[in-house]
Amino acid sequence: MSNKGRTDSQVSPHFTDEEDRRHVRERLVFFSDAVIAIAMTLLALELPVPHGQTNAEVWHSFVELLPDEYLNFVISFGVIAAFWVAHHQYFREIHVVDATLRRYNLGWLFLVVVVPFATRVSSEVGDLILGPVLYAVVISAIALLMVQMVRHATRAHLMRTEAPTQRMRGLVVGTGTAAAVFLLSIPVSFASPS
Amino acid sequence: MSNKGRTDSQVSPHFTDEEDRRHVRERLVFFSDAVIAIAMTLLALELPVPHGQTNAEVWHSFVELLPDEYLNFVISFGVIAAFWVAHHQYFREIHVVDATLRRYNLGWLFLVVVVPFATRVSSEVGDLILGPVLYAVVISAIALLMVQMVRHATRAHLMRTEAPTQRMRGLVVGTGTAAAVFLLSIPVSFASPS
Amino acid sequence: MSNKGRTDSQVSPHFTDEEDRRHVRERLVFFSDAVIAIAMTLLALELPVPHGQTNAEVWHSFVELLPDEYLNFVISFGVIAAFWVAHHQYFREIHVVDATLRRYNLGWLFLVVVVPFATRVSSEVGDLILGPVLYAVVISAIALLMVQMVRHATRAHLMRTEAPTQRMRGLVVGTGTAAAVFLLSIPVSFASPS
Amino acid sequence: MSNKGRTDSQVSPHFTDEEDRRHVRERLVFFSDAVIAIAMTLLALELPVPHGQTNAEVWHSFVELLPDEYLNFVISFGVIAAFWVAHHQYFREIHVVDATLRRYNLGWLFLVVVVPFATRVSSEVGDLILGPVLYAVVISAIALLMVQMVRHATRAHLMRTEAPTQRMRGLVVGTGTAAAVFLLSIPVSFASPS
Repeated sequence: MSNKGRTDSQVSPHFTDEEDRRHVRERLVFFSDAVIAIAMTLLALELPVPHGQTNAEVWHSFVELLPDEYLNFVISFGVIAAFWVAHHQYFREIHVVDATLRRYNLGWLFLVVVVPFATRVSSEVGDLILGPVLYAVVISAIALLMVQMVRHATRAHLMRTEAPTQRMRGLVVGTGTAAAVFLLSIPVSFASPS
Repeated sequence: MSNKGRTDSQVSPHFTDEEDRRHVRERLVFFSDAVIAIAMTLLALELPVPHGQTNAEVWHSFVELLPDEYLNFVISFGVIAAFWVAHHQYFREIHVVDATLRRYNLGWLFLVVVVPFATRVSSEVGDLILGPVLYAVVISAIALLMVQMVRHATRAHLMRTEAPTQRMRGLVVGTGTAAAVFLLSIPVSFASPS
Repeated sequence: MSNKGRTDSQVSPHFTDEEDRRHVRERLVFFSDAVIAIAMTLLALELPVPHGQTNAEVWHSFVELLPDEYLNFVISFGVIAAFWVAHHQYFREIHVVDATLRRYNLGWLFLVVVVPFATRVSSEVGDLILGPVLYAVVISAIALLMVQMVRHATRAHLMRTEAPTQRMRGLVVGTGTAAAVFLLSIPVSFASPS
Repeated sequence: MSNKGRTDSQVSPHFTDEEDRRHVRERLVFFSDAVIAIAMTLLALELPVPHGQTNAEVWHSFVELLPDEYLNFVISFGVIAAFWVAHHQYFREIHVVDATLRRYNLGWLFLVVVVPFATRVSSEVGDLILGPVLYAVVISAIALLMVQMVRHATRAHLMRTEAPTQRMRGLVVGTGTAAAVFLLSIPVSFASPS
């Protein structure tokens, strides 16, 4: 092999800090992707099959399940997909991962894993207060933690560039708005008759 | 380390646009793979175990489950596997991922996640119209969205080469045919007696 | 950036065949890993919890579940783990992936996905013939398909080296022996009283 | 392409030992991540939905489920997350993976996959001895196996550096303490009245 390309093994028998930095960043992103993908797919696992003996009965059952079960599934899939995009945009700007970011990210994944559960609660006791309130709390916590992760990345100089980019500012505006909307829905749930 | 191989960390402390392009493409492909793999494996989760007290009873139960439950599982596994190959061939030609492709891909994954549900509906109320129609709608939507993704990649110049390759043309023909077959099955389902 | 390291983006704006070869190989391996990991973890999903009101009852229930449910779980985990190692050793020697290998690999993954189902059948109707026979058929099919994959790799020149390595020969011996043992267990199942 | 950057394909048509070393290490880490991510997410799959007809009833049901079901979920998620961090820190120091480390790692993953089951046992028969004892045995086995993996890496010279680093020593102290705490909880479980 030429001395000029990929000389790692000859010059330095053990891998470099640059390989370590990439490995740490890639593994965090990879592990997050696996958790998000599973949470997303599990949403569909509990979709109830419409039942009935005739075409009319099955169709009726399908229409009945539409507003609660099926719509909730579509919304939660869309919410997790939007957060995946946010997570993706965030890590595009991250150059180095530190221990604090690792902890934040694990907390963030914990909340994502709770989304399928919050969706089930919403489908089963959605007419009562607990359903929408739990859902709103979980979603706004995911959004707020993402805002906190942007703040940490700025302060701890984890980003590719010194000044927050357009992408990062868009991320804060988007997740901040989502958090505000869901937080505002909580008093509305308490005010409306169950 | 030689100045000539892998000089990133000395010359440029923060990673390059080329690293970003690869990261974006790889993460999208990776995330898609995780979702497809889970959808595929979940198909097997709901396979019913044949039951009975004697060898003859268990065998009878097994044979009874064969045409609906087990065959549907094999077909759906084959369908998702074929779409994985199509997705794989597609992304081999993709050089850059843009925001529109990211959105299309998330919509495509949504439909793949619905396949295990459509399979369950097909197994449980497959004699009625909803079963085969829902299945045909989901499968042809996956195929048509793939055709649309090829069109977008051509128009937005996301591919490695300017002219669509042999592989891309084969992809359009294959998914287009699949969509046509499944769409044609819908009026047949309505016409045939349930 | 120096013109000498990572000159891809300047010299060739679109990625090279070498990047494509790695991408194809890595994606196949990655996708397989995801499927194997899920099949492995789903084994534990259906483990029954021992029940009872007192310590003695729970312990009794635990001991009763040990030979069928828990032991079958441990065996199937070990079997899938051993096949993961075989798959890993195989792909270490593979330099290029072709369409035939892709198809073989998808068939191989299909059989791996069936293992948790075969384990459930084995636990529930394991005293009857179907349980052990289905299990033996699935496991020996996985082993034989791996032998066929080694033959294909040799014939189609997909490997790093021309002559099959020590690792590849060990793989054929190991999986061939496993297939033989499980295939021999089938007539034994028929002969022994149920 | 310049002869100086990425000359693999010209100089050596087949990939190098350095590519093999990286592939082996990355695949092991990747596969582990997939298994850990699934085990973590499956924890949430079995969370019971609080039930009731009125807000008061649902709230009461939620509060009742809190100490056993929900708290156990949070603890197990935290435990697996902490072990993921330990696994991550461990493999940052690992330069080469050998067959023994591969076996240890598969055994380690087996124990991680058992955690959701141990959590379920803990939730359902947690007042009796089996619940806490099984949980403590599984968690301390995971911790002790990690200590053994550090010892093996030192003896077999698998690490980037000859002397164990600060990170490795911290890992041994952390997992060793966890093992000690959980092992000490076992006699306590037997001593306390059920």
